[in-house]
Amino acid sequence: MTRTPEQSAHTELALAPAPSLTPLLDRVNSPADLKRLSREQLPTLSQELRDEITRVCSVGGLHLASSLGATDLIVALHYVLNSPRDRILFDVGHQAYAHKMLTGRRAQMHTVKKEGGLSGFTKVSESEHDAITVGHASTSLANALGMAMARDALGEDYTVAAVIGDGSLTGGMALAALNTIGDVQRKMLIILNDNEMSISENVGAMSKFMRGLQVQKWFQEGEGAGKKAVQAVSKPLADLMSRAKSSTRHFFDPASVNPFAAMGVRYVGPVDGHNVGQLVWLMERLIDLDGPTILHVVTRKGKGLSYAEADPIYWHGPGKFDPATGDLSKTAGGKPTYSWSAAFGDAVTELAKLDPRTFVITPAMREGSGLVGYSKAHPKRYLDVGIAEDVAVTTAAGMALQGMRPIVAIYSSFLQRAYDQVLHDVAIENLNVTFAIDRAGIVGADGSTHNGVFDLSYLRSIPNVRVGLPKDAFELRGMLKAAQETPGPFAIRYPRGNTERVPEGTWPDLKWGTWERVQAGTDVVILAGGKALEYALKAAADLPGVGVVNARFVKPLDLEMLREVGGSARTLITVEDNTVLGGFGSAVLEAISDMGLRVPVRVLGIPDQFQDHATVESVHARSGIDAQAIRTVLAELGVDVPLGV
Amino acid sequence: MTRTPEQSAHTELALAPAPSLTPLLDRVNSPADLKRLSREQLPTLSQELRDEITRVCSVGGLHLASSLGATDLIVALHYVLNSPRDRILFDVGHQAYAHKMLTGRRAQMHTVKKEGGLSGFTKVSESEHDAITVGHASTSLANALGMAMARDALGEDYTVAAVIGDGSLTGGMALAALNTIGDVQRKMLIILNDNEMSISENVGAMSKFMRGLQVQKWFQEGEGAGKKAVQAVSKPLADLMSRAKSSTRHFFDPASVNPFAAMGVRYVGPVDGHNVGQLVWLMERLIDLDGPTILHVVTRKGKGLSYAEADPIYWHGPGKFDPATGDLSKTAGGKPTYSWSAAFGDAVTELAKLDPRTFVITPAMREGSGLVGYSKAHPKRYLDVGIAEDVAVTTAAGMALQGMRPIVAIYSSFLQRAYDQVLHDVAIENLNVTFAIDRAGIVGADGSTHNGVFDLSYLRSIPNVRVGLPKDAFELRGMLKAAQETPGPFAIRYPRGNTERVPEGTWPDLKWGTWERVQAGTDVVILAGGKALEYALKAAADLPGVGVVNARFVKPLDLEMLREVGGSARTLITVEDNTVLGGFGSAVLEAISDMGLRVPVRVLGIPDQFQDHATVESVHARSGIDAQAIRTVLAELGVDVPLGV
Repeated sequence: MTRTPEQSAHTELALAPAPSLTPLLDRVNSPADLKRLSREQLPTLSQELRDEITRVCSVGGLHLASSLGATDLIVALHYVLNSPRDRILFDVGHQAYAHKMLTGRRAQMHTVKKEGGLSGFTKVSESEHDAITVGHASTSLANALGMAMARDALGEDYTVAAVIGDGSLTGGMALAALNTIGDVQRKMLIILNDNEMSISENVGAMSKFMRGLQVQKWFQEGEGAGKKAVQAVSKPLADLMSRAKSSTRHFFDPASVNPFAAMGVRYVGPVDGHNVGQLVWLMERLIDLDGPTILHVVTRKGKGLSYAEADPIYWHGPGKFDPATGDLSKTAGGKPTYSWSAAFGDAVTELAKLDPRTFVITPAMREGSGLVGYSKAHPKRYLDVGIAEDVAVTTAAGMALQGMRPIVAIYSSFLQRAYDQVLHDVAIENLNVTFAIDRAGIVGADGSTHNGVFDLSYLRSIPNVRVGLPKDAFELRGMLKAAQETPGPFAIRYPRGNTERVPEGTWPDLKWGTWERVQAGTDVVILAGGKALEYALKAAADLPGVGVVNARFVKPLDLEMLREVGGSARTLITVEDNTVLGGFGSAVLEAISDMGLRVPVRVLGIPDQFQDHATVESVHARSGIDAQAIRTVLAELGVDVPLGV
Repeated sequence: MTRTPEQSAHTELALAPAPSLTPLLDRVNSPADLKRLSREQLPTLSQELRDEITRVCSVGGLHLASSLGATDLIVALHYVLNSPRDRILFDVGHQAYAHKMLTGRRAQMHTVKKEGGLSGFTKVSESEHDAITVGHASTSLANALGMAMARDALGEDYTVAAVIGDGSLTGGMALAALNTIGDVQRKMLIILNDNEMSISENVGAMSKFMRGLQVQKWFQEGEGAGKKAVQAVSKPLADLMSRAKSSTRHFFDPASVNPFAAMGVRYVGPVDGHNVGQLVWLMERLIDLDGPTILHVVTRKGKGLSYAEADPIYWHGPGKFDPATGDLSKTAGGKPTYSWSAAFGDAVTELAKLDPRTFVITPAMREGSGLVGYSKAHPKRYLDVGIAEDVAVTTAAGMALQGMRPIVAIYSSFLQRAYDQVLHDVAIENLNVTFAIDRAGIVGADGSTHNGVFDLSYLRSIPNVRVGLPKDAFELRGMLKAAQETPGPFAIRYPRGNTERVPEGTWPDLKWGTWERVQAGTDVVILAGGKALEYALKAAADLPGVGVVNARFVKPLDLEMLREVGGSARTLITVEDNTVLGGFGSAVLEAISDMGLRVPVRVLGIPDQFQDHATVESVHARSGIDAQAIRTVLAELGVDVPLGV
């Protein structure tokens, strides 16, 4: 038997192995493995997990700071509970890297957010240990309530534990769920992971309240097993609390009441969220109590990494860095980039100088929406409502009713949270609210929960709402200006990614509802706006018979131009970075049918399926809307398309 | 000069006028008139308003009990504030009849909810005194926040006061708005109108908490003007509170903290919401305080009418009655009716006997959704989450993840509140949640805020969601059964109104996605489901060349049958009780285009405008989807249509 060079190399390595940096973690591939460790080993395991998370995240684009902060409590939860029988829910799900590693996915961590790899969030179809599929905030409590009620209705017996951050708890849906949880009193454990931040700094009165929270006389009168457990735990309480106090500047006042207790949810805390031994000890007792319990743990985003602890907003999802030092990698050459978010932020910062009625509202996305500069330049006309998209939209409605011209800066997939508020609070009275919709279309790495591929469909079906999709910062500014100057609601959607910078003072006149012929040609005519227009132009660049129209408005359509091209073209193709159901293509079909034209229309867009994480380009290619896909369709339609693009 | 008989009659009446039942109210047609009354006259005015409201409501179908309960506080608000300069917001807006009467609309009160008449809610386009257009719950606080911020940003100076019921306050959006209100500390007055009910009995821990609420040391440390006002008011506080105590069984404990205060909102109360003099006295002082203040008033739904106080759920929106006695008018002859809601309630009550995994969830609409019987028959598999549609849907998701087969019973326009939860929490993982969507299509008297004419558009564009619209209780049961037995989310939408009762045990097999040919005929073929099918059949009854297809599934379409009829018919007509944008007609256009068929399609549906209140039949007629309208289209298409239907 001969050896290949690879086998020889392996043997040599085996003879002189480098010592593992994570000897404990190397023995843990499942919650069962974890339980074989002693309690004393858990802090070391946590540290190894954090080191590994830091290494994994150093490639850039991952959720570092929150995952580091939640590691100790995740270790404790898996040590005490029996997943997957017991259900552990992570709100938002981006803080669960330690959970992924402890449940058999360590070897795939380098694939997080990559096509075919692990999701950046928890995902039911990825692992039996992922209790919910998630990405949007504040859903875990209602999910946990449903699970607890299903358990009781089916006569089963397992523990339901939800981990929710203080940011997510400001979402109305979480507060409303708590209202019912306090009412129906099902057994469940809620870990309030209080790191004093969402992605941005936290806002809102709940947050202030939690900062000043008084440690509670933390048990209520219990019955049966609950009472016994409470008695068992109360002796060392003072010691525990004094430690919590020293690390979290809270204090102990057993006479006071807090909102959680007022709502009927037993409240315990705050305790140090990085003392894994104490967490285990507490959780072991709390899971035996009847009814709902909140365990308030205080953690640090970026725990254990000095540079991440110092600037957790940057280190929420950093670029590439050196894990040892925190040195950021330089962007590999090339010209500096200018994001759509920055283009929007620069535009509104200028706009607010020109118009005292401009007011910008964000639901907890100041950084992501390019609004750091704006918030500093116009602090009195800037509002962050926390993770509460519904409140953002209706607050804008109230402003518009009183003479302001508010702009709600929001990601497409999060605007889904405020569909009714757009309709009921803004559109019925045709109020002058502008929706600046970022991350529209496929977003890539964040996957199915974050793709903004439904907005064209659901927005255009709402009366009075006008919808535009600029191809560049020039059109973005033209649309913003038109929206501010015209009564009624306007939605302007633009993608994740970059565009070209335009000079300050650029405020083009752009008549809402007018398309633009970009390439002559009347055989086949492609209608596309925004990101899809780039693909159309690339596909048709060397095809003189093919026309391209910048269909930058989806509502209203430019019926005059549509009649013209629809009356003369052999075939129309519509391309959109939106679902094929009910979107731009459907709008064209409706109009063509209305006008009695008989021109065939090929509708290209995102298929009627959720699109998992991958690069934007890859999802566009597999969806059949990129330049190559358009050329294939052109060839099918009989256009003489040279090979290659 | 001769007299007409009418003039003579008028003169005779003038000679011997009947004494007015409302002498004070007769002098009040505006807030300015109201201010000319003395404070001592206000209780009498309130009583006259209540008498008038009772008379107005005795014709049936109006919001009686809540309007009676809010009358005293509305009188006090208009006495203290200067509307329209000051803004008075009513959450939901159905309790504001006294407000309408005090702001010049008394003479039109008999037109409430009638075509061309007053809205049943507040409506900005109806009166300058209506601060918000509303109908859905929990929006007033975010609107008020927006108004207060607009006021401050524009350097203006007026009062913003929002009236919100304890039911509406359980909505997450209201709680989240409170979170920001406590944070940004703008001057505003929130009247918490605590009548211990929403439409159904209130649920949730907040409600329990309010029942046991301790009267607060009701002022916080104030600055400047606020501090002065606080000092002025504190002397008679004990007296006030003792009265409040006797009427509301709360007690005074200045040391305690409540959730509102914890959130940074000054809390005053609870006080008697029917002592109009005290309310005026308090409000005069509270509106001068800086920052946000909640005044918690306790009211009785149905105040002053013994029969309404005794059963406020029935008297929320009663049928016709004798205002003096409360005797209910008998329905004028005819056969007994059986509502779609009752058909659903009966079906699920049976279904839950057959399947232990059935679980029904309602967001505060037990009565309206036909679930009273179900909730009694299956109390352990029934949950009312309060006015929190988002929580209803995500709680169902949690149940489905753990093996239940939950059914969310919800009105179409309220499901708009949970669009993202349907998409993010249910559809991505293809969970087995059924949406039983009541009040789909035009609802008539409740008008634009309540019409359910967007669901086909927004639901069908979500991957995995299947959509059906039964034509009768038989198909409803078939669809419910199919939905429960097949993995994935199913939406079943049915209208307000009546259907035929089916025998117990009726569980037909109905293959999801299959249409039914109801009338042969291949010249023009009408495709319609649900309510629209009724119209189509009526329109085509005497036209043998016209085919009618029961297009009872909008997703997936029955592509086989569509190919068949689309390949042979001269023209297709689609009819739907849904917007023409992105709905069923668009789905047919997409499929026809996809299949390469060239048959023309006429899309009939609700036009792209909000539809004001009127009868359902009237809105359908003006929208062009009723039988007569379809016949007109058939005639345009060259079908030989006899005159008249």
